[in-house]
Amino acid sequence: MQKVLRLVVVGTGRMGKIHIYNAATSLKVKLLGVYDVPEKREEASRLVAETGSQLFENWHSQVLENTQVDAVVIASPTHTHKTLTLDALESGKSVLCEKPLGEDLTTIQMCHQKAKEKGLTLLIDWNRRFDPSFMKLVSEVRQGFVGQLQIIRVSGRDHPVPPLPFLRHSNSCIFRDMIVHDVDLVRWIMSSEPISVYATATSCLPELVGSGIYDTATAMMEFKNGVVALLDSARNACYGYDQRLEVFGDKGMLSVENFPSNGVKWSNETGIRRDPYVWSFPERYQISFRNVLEHFADVVLRNHVPMCNEKDDLGICKIVSAMSLSASLKRRVSLKSCC
Amino acid sequence: MQKVLRLVVVGTGRMGKIHIYNAATSLKVKLLGVYDVPEKREEASRLVAETGSQLFENWHSQVLENTQVDAVVIASPTHTHKTLTLDALESGKSVLCEKPLGEDLTTIQMCHQKAKEKGLTLLIDWNRRFDPSFMKLVSEVRQGFVGQLQIIRVSGRDHPVPPLPFLRHSNSCIFRDMIVHDVDLVRWIMSSEPISVYATATSCLPELVGSGIYDTATAMMEFKNGVVALLDSARNACYGYDQRLEVFGDKGMLSVENFPSNGVKWSNETGIRRDPYVWSFPERYQISFRNVLEHFADVVLRNHVPMCNEKDDLGICKIVSAMSLSASLKRRVSLKSCC
Amino acid sequence: MQKVLRLVVVGTGRMGKIHIYNAATSLKVKLLGVYDVPEKREEASRLVAETGSQLFENWHSQVLENTQVDAVVIASPTHTHKTLTLDALESGKSVLCEKPLGEDLTTIQMCHQKAKEKGLTLLIDWNRRFDPSFMKLVSEVRQGFVGQLQIIRVSGRDHPVPPLPFLRHSNSCIFRDMIVHDVDLVRWIMSSEPISVYATATSCLPELVGSGIYDTATAMMEFKNGVVALLDSARNACYGYDQRLEVFGDKGMLSVENFPSNGVKWSNETGIRRDPYVWSFPERYQISFRNVLEHFADVVLRNHVPMCNEKDDLGICKIVSAMSLSASLKRRVSLKSCC
Amino acid sequence: MQKVLRLVVVGTGRMGKIHIYNAATSLKVKLLGVYDVPEKREEASRLVAETGSQLFENWHSQVLENTQVDAVVIASPTHTHKTLTLDALESGKSVLCEKPLGEDLTTIQMCHQKAKEKGLTLLIDWNRRFDPSFMKLVSEVRQGFVGQLQIIRVSGRDHPVPPLPFLRHSNSCIFRDMIVHDVDLVRWIMSSEPISVYATATSCLPELVGSGIYDTATAMMEFKNGVVALLDSARNACYGYDQRLEVFGDKGMLSVENFPSNGVKWSNETGIRRDPYVWSFPERYQISFRNVLEHFADVVLRNHVPMCNEKDDLGICKIVSAMSLSASLKRRVSLKSCC
Repeated sequence: MQKVLRLVVVGTGRMGKIHIYNAATSLKVKLLGVYDVPEKREEASRLVAETGSQLFENWHSQVLENTQVDAVVIASPTHTHKTLTLDALESGKSVLCEKPLGEDLTTIQMCHQKAKEKGLTLLIDWNRRFDPSFMKLVSEVRQGFVGQLQIIRVSGRDHPVPPLPFLRHSNSCIFRDMIVHDVDLVRWIMSSEPISVYATATSCLPELVGSGIYDTATAMMEFKNGVVALLDSARNACYGYDQRLEVFGDKGMLSVENFPSNGVKWSNETGIRRDPYVWSFPERYQISFRNVLEHFADVVLRNHVPMCNEKDDLGICKIVSAMSLSASLKRRVSLKSCC
Repeated sequence: MQKVLRLVVVGTGRMGKIHIYNAATSLKVKLLGVYDVPEKREEASRLVAETGSQLFENWHSQVLENTQVDAVVIASPTHTHKTLTLDALESGKSVLCEKPLGEDLTTIQMCHQKAKEKGLTLLIDWNRRFDPSFMKLVSEVRQGFVGQLQIIRVSGRDHPVPPLPFLRHSNSCIFRDMIVHDVDLVRWIMSSEPISVYATATSCLPELVGSGIYDTATAMMEFKNGVVALLDSARNACYGYDQRLEVFGDKGMLSVENFPSNGVKWSNETGIRRDPYVWSFPERYQISFRNVLEHFADVVLRNHVPMCNEKDDLGICKIVSAMSLSASLKRRVSLKSCC
Repeated sequence: MQKVLRLVVVGTGRMGKIHIYNAATSLKVKLLGVYDVPEKREEASRLVAETGSQLFENWHSQVLENTQVDAVVIASPTHTHKTLTLDALESGKSVLCEKPLGEDLTTIQMCHQKAKEKGLTLLIDWNRRFDPSFMKLVSEVRQGFVGQLQIIRVSGRDHPVPPLPFLRHSNSCIFRDMIVHDVDLVRWIMSSEPISVYATATSCLPELVGSGIYDTATAMMEFKNGVVALLDSARNACYGYDQRLEVFGDKGMLSVENFPSNGVKWSNETGIRRDPYVWSFPERYQISFRNVLEHFADVVLRNHVPMCNEKDDLGICKIVSAMSLSASLKRRVSLKSCC
Repeated sequence: MQKVLRLVVVGTGRMGKIHIYNAATSLKVKLLGVYDVPEKREEASRLVAETGSQLFENWHSQVLENTQVDAVVIASPTHTHKTLTLDALESGKSVLCEKPLGEDLTTIQMCHQKAKEKGLTLLIDWNRRFDPSFMKLVSEVRQGFVGQLQIIRVSGRDHPVPPLPFLRHSNSCIFRDMIVHDVDLVRWIMSSEPISVYATATSCLPELVGSGIYDTATAMMEFKNGVVALLDSARNACYGYDQRLEVFGDKGMLSVENFPSNGVKWSNETGIRRDPYVWSFPERYQISFRNVLEHFADVVLRNHVPMCNEKDDLGICKIVSAMSLSASLKRRVSLKSCC
């Protein structure tokens, strides 16, 4: 029987729950327990009861000092990522952290430095790299199916619209929240950094008009070899979760379209209909989230090469910063000039 | 400039109009005029005005004795086909006739006998053989894509529901009207005759229940080599014209699905929708009907081998008769025993 | 925390493994252990190690007399189903058994009688009733989307071709092995019994020609209200697992097509391509198999109404027997006359 | 019988042939003859023979001074458009001209001025406005299906790659040749002018690298109300003619995907395949080209409102000039600043 990674999940929000259920039902990891802040204790209690794991109420004594714990999955609010990650690494626990590790390059570097010092794994959950369809697409690109790349298109539109308080939160930024994943996809495909970006951002939801919070954005990433990636993003796709990718080159095109939420086709005099696409990211990336957890176990326990690393975390951060700047300045931003 | 077939279209109903417009806009044939019975004269007048052709009011003097006329396209009511065909052939005109030539084998044989005597072309409008998608499918079957055939599935469901008076007409028979075309497809694919058939027929439309007129039917055709074709048919597909074909064998499957009526996709919170399939046979078989007319010209003027012949007309007639019998007797009917 | 059903899986073949992994990763059941015959001990040992469960080597002392065991999942060879089921029920364990319980009506009745006497649950794994797409389709049929039903079409074609020794096994019968599931679907949709069936069966695989073992079959089921179901089945779909369902009526059509094995689309000068459909039943019915296990737990522990019952098991058995008879006799078989 | 527009087609290249065949087979226009330069006389002779029309060898005496001629369709090389258009208008003939009328705004204004003076019709063949699917999409946008627009995506990729001499020709510009049509679509949908554009252009074909002739380009159009259109274009789609349009807003999305070249689906162990998309623009826009000719007849003879006018011709010209400038300068170009 292979060794199992014993872990604690921090956070019981949407991503926390995904990791909790996956950890509780995977044969590669063991969910020891769940940690969250006191005001979330009730939800945490329900989850540990359902999954047969333990409620940890004290971060230091029960998690950090717990020698049973091999690793920590951090799915708490963004502003806590840095401290929790450094804490955990310092205490000898490997870390799988939701993006972003931090908003600035220094934080990202500091955390990875700590992981290196301690000889531990620090993995950011760039979950799309673990989606079987995207993995297949990238593998085919590598094998030359599309030939010389020319154009990449990515659409990433959220469903349902997040609650306004979440959007109005000072840190909400469509580039850092959403397009960051599309940027990860493009960088992964290209295996190189763009030389410049151009981006736009607008507010279309009536509640956001004039607020300075953008719900719609587009971006271009230009690469040295002439490849251009076109990205677009919106908070409010009403027809289900919209995540599409297309890679075009001189030998062909590879694409991944949206996922139907079931296999039924309705036909009558109003037309031929399918249900809206899958509801949101937990459905669309169900397998990715499971994969990332098991990949994390393989990296920690069996020395697998991590699917993403510090260079990725830094590169992505630079690009979304440049996009945000470009949208403000309404001009092309060179990647050299911006960071 | 290639020689052009000069023809007269008989009949101004749905099929007549299709042939009239096709003849008027084809570079391979020339529409000399239109003939119909006196009570249809008004419609005929409108059509000849629009197409710049002539109204022929006298069948004998203006059509049969007209040396300008090379051929006649017969799209009048079924019961007139036999007489008009024999008339035209007798007068030295080639004939393209809508199905059926006649309800019995003798009529079919008599007409073909006359054509042979006169050295003229007699072609029945088995229009599906001229549909580019079906042609491609059959060509791929011949080239072995599906390997050894095992199962054929054909759905042929009409849209919109024909007027009840038409259905109630004594000659209305779902096997002879509709399934006859599916039988043609299957025989064409198989290039052989079935050894037996089994069929069912029912009345589902409230206006037809108990009338002895069937609006829904299914049939099986069994071939000596083990291939079985499953056919189903209904008068009342509400989601557009439904014509599907599938050929399955040990090396693969070929299929032709329904045709969308346009290229637009509607996406919102109620789902992902396309418009209903194309309205009816004039839209679905638009190219076939044009092709059949030009094929007719090529057969008459340029000695092309006709896509269908007396053997087909007889074979199809035998099979639909056997199906009708099977549905009545509620038992399998051997093709040898029935005709 | 809700009560969990503690179970033992009997059998380590394809279906056994599916149940073992599902039981080991479900929050609703607990896999206590695995039982198989001595010659399968090695595989069983590997599985219990991987899932952290126990190897049971003695059916009576370790499983039947084990008071920790609430229920048994039977996935052993068909000929053992009856004895194991009666054993387990007699010992007070509820049973989830792979189809068929037995080949004859008496066995089915005897087993259900025993379950009733003991106040236990006996559920046959008619797994398609637990597929989300089929469940949605049937729910929409019940709510009237298709109106008055007229035609049902089901295709069930296996992939990959099972090993010849399996097919040559005396009990192998395409009606009892494969079409039985399609019959279940049709009966479920109709909520009534057919009045007659007509079926054909042939051998197309070179290794089976003349062996009396059929790899291709078709069937019709006729219902009193005029609905006809067309079924077809083959052992050798080469383009992936082929399971399609279509329900047609006067108000519309509902259908479930095949499932793609991933979301990638390949486009180049040879065309627009998707990968073959999902490999086989474990992939296609992954969610159904998980659902059936959790449904079984809900029935045993929480009094949920079982999705299928003795009437279904008997009805399905009668119909496949009649189909097999019809294919032999080459005639329509009335359901009254045959059993 | 409605009045018929008698016309002469100038040019026998790809577009000329399309207009010649459409004119010869339409009931709304009459093809009087074809004019081309002496070196193209042979092809012209073949075409007039096939269509039963006349060869005009002298532009002035046979076309301009011919009182039988109502209108002229100009499909000759781009540099001749201006002179031929002014000639024809001066002689009292209405004109349907292939794009572009001219490369500069002055030419466009001068030609329209002449048409106004003479009370004649001058229509540029913005053929996509006559495609039934795009017409349906735009009509649904107008009726509010997508709600408030946010993002428009257009892909326009050519197939097959045009001959290198054509591309190397000094006037070849991917913005003016190709993206011009996408710009037309976006302007038509928006019914307003963009405030700025940003564009990129590169050479990917080995034969063009470093030549200053671009085969791949992308562009953004930003509108005052926040809508952004993303466009991409390439000369070398290998999987068929690629023309896609998508309009996204807060209430839904409308899209038009590519058109399959036939209805056949191939399934085997290598996957599920369709043939490449339709070959090129003559196939994809077959109906549009016919529609534009008949629309032209309706405008000239029956006072229909033209689908596009001087304002469109000028607006489109300004935008593609700005795009070309943006790609050179590698910066955002405001529409006010550029023209």
